[in-house]
Amino acid sequence: MTSKIGYLGPEGTFSQQAAIHQLESLPSDSSCLRAYPTIALLLSAVDSEDVQYGVVPAENSIEGSVNITLDMLANELNLYIHKEIVLGIKHHLLTYAPTLNKIHTVMSHPHALAQCRLFLQKKLPHANLVDTNSTSEAVLKVSSKSIGTAAIASKNCHLVYQVPILAENIGDFSHNQTRFWVVGKQPSLLEKTLKTSLVLSMEKDRPGSLYNTLGEFAKHNINLTRIESRPAKKELGNYIFFIDCEAGQDNPGLKQVLDTLCKKTSFLKILGSYNISHY
Amino acid sequence: MTSKIGYLGPEGTFSQQAAIHQLESLPSDSSCLRAYPTIALLLSAVDSEDVQYGVVPAENSIEGSVNITLDMLANELNLYIHKEIVLGIKHHLLTYAPTLNKIHTVMSHPHALAQCRLFLQKKLPHANLVDTNSTSEAVLKVSSKSIGTAAIASKNCHLVYQVPILAENIGDFSHNQTRFWVVGKQPSLLEKTLKTSLVLSMEKDRPGSLYNTLGEFAKHNINLTRIESRPAKKELGNYIFFIDCEAGQDNPGLKQVLDTLCKKTSFLKILGSYNISHY
Repeated sequence: MTSKIGYLGPEGTFSQQAAIHQLESLPSDSSCLRAYPTIALLLSAVDSEDVQYGVVPAENSIEGSVNITLDMLANELNLYIHKEIVLGIKHHLLTYAPTLNKIHTVMSHPHALAQCRLFLQKKLPHANLVDTNSTSEAVLKVSSKSIGTAAIASKNCHLVYQVPILAENIGDFSHNQTRFWVVGKQPSLLEKTLKTSLVLSMEKDRPGSLYNTLGEFAKHNINLTRIESRPAKKELGNYIFFIDCEAGQDNPGLKQVLDTLCKKTSFLKILGSYNISHY
Repeated sequence: MTSKIGYLGPEGTFSQQAAIHQLESLPSDSSCLRAYPTIALLLSAVDSEDVQYGVVPAENSIEGSVNITLDMLANELNLYIHKEIVLGIKHHLLTYAPTLNKIHTVMSHPHALAQCRLFLQKKLPHANLVDTNSTSEAVLKVSSKSIGTAAIASKNCHLVYQVPILAENIGDFSHNQTRFWVVGKQPSLLEKTLKTSLVLSMEKDRPGSLYNTLGEFAKHNINLTRIESRPAKKELGNYIFFIDCEAGQDNPGLKQVLDTLCKKTSFLKILGSYNISHY
């Protein structure tokens, strides 16, 4: 069986890098990768089983959550997280310009531009900043445009598109990492997992109820590694909460927490129980 | 004294609309508005007192927080919120094209594009979607480009740039509102306020400590209207929390909460106590 893995393309993205790690962890030799132009199309392809797994960015240590991923998993599709892949992120300036002062335009994904803000302010204060859908799309544009354009992208992009690196490691922050989720249409069959992600909302959107919800985890000594609010897409002040906790699906305490939350919440969805690989 | 108010330009943005409301609430006739191209430059202008107030978007009911606003107020500048302005948001399709099938490109701020996703998928599935820095920038581009381009923007934009509206109210969600904050260099002198915003982080980034922090507010019967995590811009799993609560700075319970949090948190910053105007 061909086990296709979808990623956020085009070639050269950090998402592809994460997908290659997932590919290497699978037994089949005939597995192959397929690029999708947006996260929405990628997740829809997993849902319609055009690919077996999708590798999507979920959170960056600097920019925070990738909202479209969270919103689609919570509200639109019923997919399951099978694995978390944590990638270290290093940004480089790719350009045919021989020196910085020849560059009038810098293109990249908005997160990459934001993560190099101090470098751009200091070294390229007059450059026009242009958002692209991915870091690779920026490099593709640079490779076909005039010498005055530059892209912020990975070393992988440099290797794929052969655009020279003029400045290395230009990110403002040293601990830059992105969490990717490997999602599938069916729940993972792994019994021993380290982490569980869920999303919930409360009947009364009062943080007294959030306080009580967090208390359920505290009562069973389950540590939360993340809590993130997102609008419920109704009025202002109406939220859903994404919670990651350090407990697998075989943890009896977690089972009790989930039983209680089932009764106390107006919406509860398990996004998956999974393990983590760091690269 | 000329009381200049800065907003996220160019002319026609929702930010300008909010700034006009702020202008109307001030006593001086000689007040005037000034547009800034980015939120970062606008907030820096408030910090250097080039303008007395800046009107910045803080949160949208669909898209969630405006991260650059939160991050700059938390980490980079010491500014204070004086007022919250809540605007109802309606999106329209502005274009010189006579019919939808003549449109090959739709431009707008990424939030506006995201908020009209279902309309775009259904009515303009083949259109190329292009991000711009603001809804007005998209309209400006449409007004100078070929007939096949369209912008998603406000009625205000239609009035300012005279680009026709081809489709009205194309947003996917009926309750679409944006919170704007009016920020200044000095704290507000208002004694009676309804709401306080603060940002904090805990020594140990364990949600047990978040649970205890929320407990301080619960103990004094202070309702939280929002809790939002943002990365501390260190490793993954390190967060700061933005909290809005229904208590003014004259509330004795809030004073006690803040005294306790001062000792319990590793970082605590009051962003302001203020009232809210709805439009």
